[in-house]
Amino acid sequence: MNKLETLFIPEEIKNVELAGKLVVIIDVLRASSTIVTALANGCSGSGFIPIFSPEQAKEEAQQFAKERVLLGGEREGKKIEGFDLGNSPREYKREVVKDKTIIFSTTNGVKTLEIIKDARRIIIGSFLNLQAVCNYCTNYQGDISIICAGRDGQFSLEDAACAGMIINSLRDVFPGGLQEVDANLTAQLLYEKFGNNILETLRKSQHGRYLESIGLSEDLKFCSQLDFYHIVPILRDGIISI
Amino acid sequence: MNKLETLFIPEEIKNVELAGKLVVIIDVLRASSTIVTALANGCSGSGFIPIFSPEQAKEEAQQFAKERVLLGGEREGKKIEGFDLGNSPREYKREVVKDKTIIFSTTNGVKTLEIIKDARRIIIGSFLNLQAVCNYCTNYQGDISIICAGRDGQFSLEDAACAGMIINSLRDVFPGGLQEVDANLTAQLLYEKFGNNILETLRKSQHGRYLESIGLSEDLKFCSQLDFYHIVPILRDGIISI
Repeated sequence: MNKLETLFIPEEIKNVELAGKLVVIIDVLRASSTIVTALANGCSGSGFIPIFSPEQAKEEAQQFAKERVLLGGEREGKKIEGFDLGNSPREYKREVVKDKTIIFSTTNGVKTLEIIKDARRIIIGSFLNLQAVCNYCTNYQGDISIICAGRDGQFSLEDAACAGMIINSLRDVFPGGLQEVDANLTAQLLYEKFGNNILETLRKSQHGRYLESIGLSEDLKFCSQLDFYHIVPILRDGIISI
Repeated sequence: MNKLETLFIPEEIKNVELAGKLVVIIDVLRASSTIVTALANGCSGSGFIPIFSPEQAKEEAQQFAKERVLLGGEREGKKIEGFDLGNSPREYKREVVKDKTIIFSTTNGVKTLEIIKDARRIIIGSFLNLQAVCNYCTNYQGDISIICAGRDGQFSLEDAACAGMIINSLRDVFPGGLQEVDANLTAQLLYEKFGNNILETLRKSQHGRYLESIGLSEDLKFCSQLDFYHIVPILRDGIISI
């Protein structure tokens, strides 16, 4: 029987074998939500390219015609100097991103993508595309790791609650097996406690409160929309596309 | 106001500042429980010395008269070859450990102790000495980090639930402040869900089930005894004593 495990912190991957697995990366606030939104709104060209270092991101951008590329990302929640866009999914509107390549640098989400090695397939999950991710997992033949990006290398409530909602949706696909992993059981408990009001969960979380404190309450509302999109971003050879 | 934070996995300490803090290390199954039991039962001499490497532990033991020292510890839950004792608290009886120095090597708990640097004070917590630990925390002037030893670098239910019980006991000492940390809130939720039956929690956990599978069910019963001892082991200069 296939297995599913949740890792609350990217550092945990040092101690697990990802070879042959489907990895679902979750960074609800906000990298996952932004990636899903940008791809749903037609960014394409050479797709969505995650690069942790802002300097490397700028260099990479030089390789594209100026009108075909956008630099996006954040440090401490704010747009990086010299970049076109921040890390608010609301900025990644169709009229802005359609047919553009986006080079993207964020603290937690992109850093996590860079340290994942050996997985057979890497996809991006958020509340915005939750059912699409669950369908993908249901059809996947093999073990699955849900990896929460967390907040500066620490546990984050909103990612764990999102993992819990995925686990809850998949409980019939993995009969009897999901609660046998301590972190799955805990994630599901968080979903049961907080999942009926996603926005409240985001507002309760440390990073949610930080974003509200810098004037980004609207991002919490946007990221809390369940199944707003029906796409599954996939990372292949350093590029995320659908 | 002083702060309290929970870290579910020792790796998280890379991203936090421990200087000036009280650190509570929790490894319910079983290093914390064994250390508390051994010290309550009178091991002393040069105290209880945690050393991760079994080879170094053996070398260290050479420095003591044979009749005054015991080697204890485990790998994969089982006694290390050539050692006197495993990692079952039930082995650390008064008649065995009284006035002995114990040199101790375990996978998660001792490894965690070795990577903690800079904390002002490091103490050992478990269900066995929970109230004593809570009293110590209440009287401490400064910030507190509860660090769960986890299981092979991953989240463990029993340590998080024990952290949750400590947090729940301290909620009046840190009024309004504890739930503002995502991991505190999650630990407390685990305690509320599972804490009224500690033995069941241990039996539900991955490591508890593993210990039961190798014939150590009695250890789960022993480690589930709330406030069986009233001591607080303290690590000073590489030696744990009370």
